[in-house]
Amino acid sequence: MKKEMFGHEISVLRDTYRRLLHRKAKTNLVKLIDKTHPADLAIIYRFFTDNDQNYLFNLMSNNEYSAEFLSELDDSILEDLLEDIPPERIVQIIRIASSDDQTTILNALPEDKSQTIIDSLHADEQVEIEEMLAYPEDSAGSMMSTDVFTLNEELTVGEAIKDLQNQENAEMVFYLYVTDDDNHLTGVISLRALVTTSPTTKLKNIMISNVQYVRAETDQEEVAKIVSHYNLLAVPVVDSNDEILGIVTVDDVVDVIREEATEDFLQMAGAGKDREILLKSTWGNARARLPWLFATWIGGIVTMSIIGYFDNMLQSLILLAAFIPIVAGMGGNVATQSSSIVVRGLATGRIDIGKDLQLILKELSVGLILGALYGLLLGTLIFIFFKDVPIIFGVVVGLSICASMVIAASIGTTVPLLLRKLDIDPAIASGPFVTTTTDIVGISAYFLIASALLPM
Amino acid sequence: MKKEMFGHEISVLRDTYRRLLHRKAKTNLVKLIDKTHPADLAIIYRFFTDNDQNYLFNLMSNNEYSAEFLSELDDSILEDLLEDIPPERIVQIIRIASSDDQTTILNALPEDKSQTIIDSLHADEQVEIEEMLAYPEDSAGSMMSTDVFTLNEELTVGEAIKDLQNQENAEMVFYLYVTDDDNHLTGVISLRALVTTSPTTKLKNIMISNVQYVRAETDQEEVAKIVSHYNLLAVPVVDSNDEILGIVTVDDVVDVIREEATEDFLQMAGAGKDREILLKSTWGNARARLPWLFATWIGGIVTMSIIGYFDNMLQSLILLAAFIPIVAGMGGNVATQSSSIVVRGLATGRIDIGKDLQLILKELSVGLILGALYGLLLGTLIFIFFKDVPIIFGVVVGLSICASMVIAASIGTTVPLLLRKLDIDPAIASGPFVTTTTDIVGISAYFLIASALLPM
Repeated sequence: MKKEMFGHEISVLRDTYRRLLHRKAKTNLVKLIDKTHPADLAIIYRFFTDNDQNYLFNLMSNNEYSAEFLSELDDSILEDLLEDIPPERIVQIIRIASSDDQTTILNALPEDKSQTIIDSLHADEQVEIEEMLAYPEDSAGSMMSTDVFTLNEELTVGEAIKDLQNQENAEMVFYLYVTDDDNHLTGVISLRALVTTSPTTKLKNIMISNVQYVRAETDQEEVAKIVSHYNLLAVPVVDSNDEILGIVTVDDVVDVIREEATEDFLQMAGAGKDREILLKSTWGNARARLPWLFATWIGGIVTMSIIGYFDNMLQSLILLAAFIPIVAGMGGNVATQSSSIVVRGLATGRIDIGKDLQLILKELSVGLILGALYGLLLGTLIFIFFKDVPIIFGVVVGLSICASMVIAASIGTTVPLLLRKLDIDPAIASGPFVTTTTDIVGISAYFLIASALLPM
Repeated sequence: MKKEMFGHEISVLRDTYRRLLHRKAKTNLVKLIDKTHPADLAIIYRFFTDNDQNYLFNLMSNNEYSAEFLSELDDSILEDLLEDIPPERIVQIIRIASSDDQTTILNALPEDKSQTIIDSLHADEQVEIEEMLAYPEDSAGSMMSTDVFTLNEELTVGEAIKDLQNQENAEMVFYLYVTDDDNHLTGVISLRALVTTSPTTKLKNIMISNVQYVRAETDQEEVAKIVSHYNLLAVPVVDSNDEILGIVTVDDVVDVIREEATEDFLQMAGAGKDREILLKSTWGNARARLPWLFATWIGGIVTMSIIGYFDNMLQSLILLAAFIPIVAGMGGNVATQSSSIVVRGLATGRIDIGKDLQLILKELSVGLILGALYGLLLGTLIFIFFKDVPIIFGVVVGLSICASMVIAASIGTTVPLLLRKLDIDPAIASGPFVTTTTDIVGISAYFLIASALLPM
């Protein structure tokens, strides 16, 4: 039961809120909100009605708390909630929010309301926000925080510490980025190195000059790879001039990793890519899943035509029909294995770029080993138990299972690699398409082998 | 092509190493290692032969570098490499490694070699390492770093900074944990708060006293949830006495999140849970995937028997066989959707604990909507194009698709929820078992509906 600990605490908190909401116990709720971590409250919001959500939000008086809370909400809840908040309140929150939270909130608003809010900010605030909003979604630029603290490399450690103590905004200082006179990023110093070095040392003498950085347009997956690979707490975002635009912090990277994994997971299952599918209505849920089933449906009709084409053969040996599911099922299973291994390998960088053919051949061999084994097993079984069919029938089914599995491994490996080459997310199309294609090709192989080998 | 940037740099680096290795250019290699981040070298190791791996390792003279490098290696490569390193060298590295890296290295050694190494350490080092090794695998205890820095709450900020400057080991200080006279954890202060507060303030007046912590036996998934949920950089591990044992840092949490996602991903595909399956030989790969295919194979034999049982009906209407794949395929696809949504929802905490029945009913409704739609579509198609079969045949197939999809959604939702209740990882068994069960039940429903409605 260890695993439920965290979930358990959340449900206790949720029930407390429910009781107080039921009694409209305003004073107690205000106190409780004060003691609740904004991230916890964001989770609990999933289980409240729209009315309760609005009521609670109006009890939050601290704009800093509200900003953090909003940034932790699920997108769909955030959109709903913002609809009912007057623009003046949103302006107050935006003013105080960190730059990445500003982007999150503004992106969740309808175009016109978001514009109204931007218009009521000061000119310099407007410019900054519009710059942030201009970066492509899911890029380093859109997730960075611009409250970054830089120091000139000619400063001494003592001067740097004094400078730091006067900074109010740069709340997440783990690393201090060092620049030259032209504002170019030249190095990085950890806060700890700073406090443990003699005050007269110049920054340029203790900084690490080989800094990992990303560009504003770098994809968030790439940012996540760099931060997690080099065990960083933050990575600076620089422009083409090597000037720092902002930093992406590890907590946002953790969210990206989780989200990308969830999206890949759902996409492989042909269930869309909406991470919040569980929050959707029954209709919304069905609508999201509907299109992906169409591939299977069309595939089913194709398979039907193929089997229909061989109906004379079926007529003379009805037992052939009984083995259709095992031929298709074994192929489908191997295809899912191969495509999942490849899709995940591509996502985690475990696949050696440029070695595609080698990988396909390897998977094909794996398919052959597994296919030969399970084919032999089934063929033998048929040979022993089915006395009234031609002896060759066991060979037909065994060979077909083997063929279906080899084909499946090849398709399962090739499709995601190919999609990647075409710059399409391999997770999107691999799931249902791979199994459907495998079904069609596997069943065709089965009937072709049967018509070649069976005496009819 | 943006996504390939990181991979591209790695392959350039790999090729440089290959060239130098080919020429056995020792001096250049030593220089290159010096400039390569240990995490990068660990990735490149995947593409080297055993000989080259050993040769390169012997060129690393810096034990701190070697320790970090070893901790970044894939488990299977680490095991191979350690086999060829003399125990004396490992002892030197262990001495200098952080406590979590010590655990990683010792766990990758065969029992006897690991014992030899522990025996040659000092008595106090031995006790510490043996304590670490005693924690269950995948627990907070086994992944924590014990080099943690604590301060008494009665100290002033000025005293604390002086103390900090004398610390050499606690290399990753983001948070300073504060304790009372009995060594109980009472609060936390960020390094930044420390440098920006007046030196005479007492720590207990500026510390945050509501500290998130975990126990040594807390599962790593739970640790990851807490760190990512509260956007922490580290979480303290405390014993039942509230004394600090160590800290788990966010970089290790990032690894856990990636690894758990990969494991769930592979398990759902019935491909085992070995993250390093791509590094295995063809045989090893086949062996890992073999057992999971057995479920499908057995399922296929059961389905065969069911279809065999209805062979009289098939004989009189051979067209029935042609629709077996679409009935099974649509069911399988919906089952995969449902089980993936539920497994991922459980992993990311998006499922409301205690609302199982509600979730099952919702998924069942989704299955009904999708099933009714695709069933109607196929039934109509059959009605239009198949003039020489009984009119009722379209109804039979349409109803069967619908039934198969409703059953599939229910099985796909119930199985992972049930496994979770039984404290079994829902990802392990959901994949192949769910689709196989769906195949069996869906095809049975098809033939039962056919035998009830068709005039024969």
